[in-house]
Amino acid sequence: MRTVNVPLGPRSYSIRIGPGLCSRVGQECARLGLGRRCAVISDSNVAPRYAGVVEGSLRAAGFEPCVMTIPAGEPSKRLRHVEACYDRLAAHRLERKSFVAALGGGVVGDLAGFVAATYLRGVALVQVPTTLLAQVDSSVGGKVGVNLAAGKNLVGAFYQPGVVLCDLDTLGTLPDREYRAGLAEVIKYGIIYDAALFRRLERDLDRLLDRDPDTLAQVIARCCQIKAEVVGQDETEGGLRAILNFGHTIGHGLEAISRYGKYLHGEAIAMGQVAAARLSARLTGLPVREVERIRALFERAGLPTAVRLDRRQRERLLGAMRLDKKVSAGELKFVLAERVGRVRWGQAVPQLELERVLAGGSPAEGD
Amino acid sequence: MRTVNVPLGPRSYSIRIGPGLCSRVGQECARLGLGRRCAVISDSNVAPRYAGVVEGSLRAAGFEPCVMTIPAGEPSKRLRHVEACYDRLAAHRLERKSFVAALGGGVVGDLAGFVAATYLRGVALVQVPTTLLAQVDSSVGGKVGVNLAAGKNLVGAFYQPGVVLCDLDTLGTLPDREYRAGLAEVIKYGIIYDAALFRRLERDLDRLLDRDPDTLAQVIARCCQIKAEVVGQDETEGGLRAILNFGHTIGHGLEAISRYGKYLHGEAIAMGQVAAARLSARLTGLPVREVERIRALFERAGLPTAVRLDRRQRERLLGAMRLDKKVSAGELKFVLAERVGRVRWGQAVPQLELERVLAGGSPAEGD
Repeated sequence: MRTVNVPLGPRSYSIRIGPGLCSRVGQECARLGLGRRCAVISDSNVAPRYAGVVEGSLRAAGFEPCVMTIPAGEPSKRLRHVEACYDRLAAHRLERKSFVAALGGGVVGDLAGFVAATYLRGVALVQVPTTLLAQVDSSVGGKVGVNLAAGKNLVGAFYQPGVVLCDLDTLGTLPDREYRAGLAEVIKYGIIYDAALFRRLERDLDRLLDRDPDTLAQVIARCCQIKAEVVGQDETEGGLRAILNFGHTIGHGLEAISRYGKYLHGEAIAMGQVAAARLSARLTGLPVREVERIRALFERAGLPTAVRLDRRQRERLLGAMRLDKKVSAGELKFVLAERVGRVRWGQAVPQLELERVLAGGSPAEGD
Repeated sequence: MRTVNVPLGPRSYSIRIGPGLCSRVGQECARLGLGRRCAVISDSNVAPRYAGVVEGSLRAAGFEPCVMTIPAGEPSKRLRHVEACYDRLAAHRLERKSFVAALGGGVVGDLAGFVAATYLRGVALVQVPTTLLAQVDSSVGGKVGVNLAAGKNLVGAFYQPGVVLCDLDTLGTLPDREYRAGLAEVIKYGIIYDAALFRRLERDLDRLLDRDPDTLAQVIARCCQIKAEVVGQDETEGGLRAILNFGHTIGHGLEAISRYGKYLHGEAIAMGQVAAARLSARLTGLPVREVERIRALFERAGLPTAVRLDRRQRERLLGAMRLDKKVSAGELKFVLAERVGRVRWGQAVPQLELERVLAGGSPAEGD
């Protein structure tokens, strides 16, 4: 088992990465000095496979869990389900020292995290991410929340977990599409922070697509380490942390205009990252051949790379992007790359450039 | 104008107390370095009187406010209205540097505070309390949140305002019942922290009931100072801060079983404090004559002092109290008095003693 520490002073915590962790959730929670009553929040895909193991492990360690399940998928990440969870926590009489375990992908982690952050003004949170995307990204760093009809993650909090348990066995049963969507965040870490990781992904992508356990363990640990380093320096996104949003402004907009139904988050940010790379070629000097390396790696991972929208969809996308949390004084701020492994945040992008890239203009086409 | 500082390191802020502050909200906000877009959240009682003045003051200072109104009263303090506010903030395109001003009593302050704490993971909050209760208690200290059907304030956060503006003029138009309810929190500060304040209230109660401006200004400033001292030492209620809950465990239970409709919060905690004083006589040595001083002062303030419940209501009350946030390992913890001006928190109370006091047994009756 590998352990990555997230250094946040009194809110520091560990990420554990290894096989068989679902059956050790109880033991790991027992170290945290928590009360006996707890809740496991999961979804309709994950609960049938793993909730029983997690619940049994908690009971064996002396805890009294109740298990609640939301429908799988991004449309569940909303206040209606948050409210239903609150009511269950009240019925199970959770107390201030109780805790909530989030067992599932990014949707479950974000929603259960927000429930934990706000129930009784905050109870402890244990993240048990079961998707690649949640293991390398959403379960680490403390961003929790839900969507509004008007946009993604518009409601939420910064709320750090007590521990993150990444059970590698859960990745074996992940549907192919969801697994590939997780690779979009993995590739992102290479682009924003670590050229060596990017080269390794270019070299080892086939092994990753085969879900080779050793390669996975190493790559996931490296991604968590990068996220821990970034979040450790800037917990609440005053500056540096913004680099984690590379490709996300356009990606979130694409999710919003398709009402969170058409694309998985990873697919949307794959398109968003390629578009951001194209903007970077125009504005921050990213060489055109690097844009192509980035595009090619997403493509090899089986992810969509081209934003194809008609004029009306494009206008709706621009409208949705203006609602993004990263807007300041009405101006959209982007993370743009200088080269693979190095990005700049807070970059203003002229409306015309944005429209041109969204209309499909690539720098290679010289339009 | 008086100013009380709340010392919380990077989250420190000022409470300003004086006449005419509603028309200075814009100027005060201009000092805080906030973005232009903002929202004023108020209720159907307060908005017709003061929202126009506040909105005008904000516009004159260069801000772009939108005003939203919830129905007056405790039943509005729930997630449905929080969600409606989020949607309005999204439609008005609030950004991370935007702010929310809470204009009203405790319900508005708690709800708008929770909206501010969670929209975009937190935007700035300006409290403009317009009731006595909100000015001396709920607007100061950073507890924000809403009720669930299962209990009061079960959902929320600790989230400090950027400034608190107590306009004394707003107290002149407060209905008598609500004004008296506010006195329940004023009297509480005397019991838990300041015997001299309690004596002053015994002496000057008639002036307070006449809403004499000088007396009010002095008493409100002293209450805010006490709250600031307590919160400054214990922001998130690890210990000392619990003393502010004197009378609140029973009070919240009374509110819950009457579905937040029958009693004002101040009325419920007046009864709760007298009951807590009776428990204190049995358990922490509060002299019986002090119980009577406490009861008499609440009575002179026109507040209910006796809990009158039949057996079924009493059982429901005990059930509601067990859902209180202050329950730990299934045990209810009380704040009890040793004498006027000095209390102890975290006191276990045997079920039998609690039932006896709720059944109306006073120590004077020697039952």
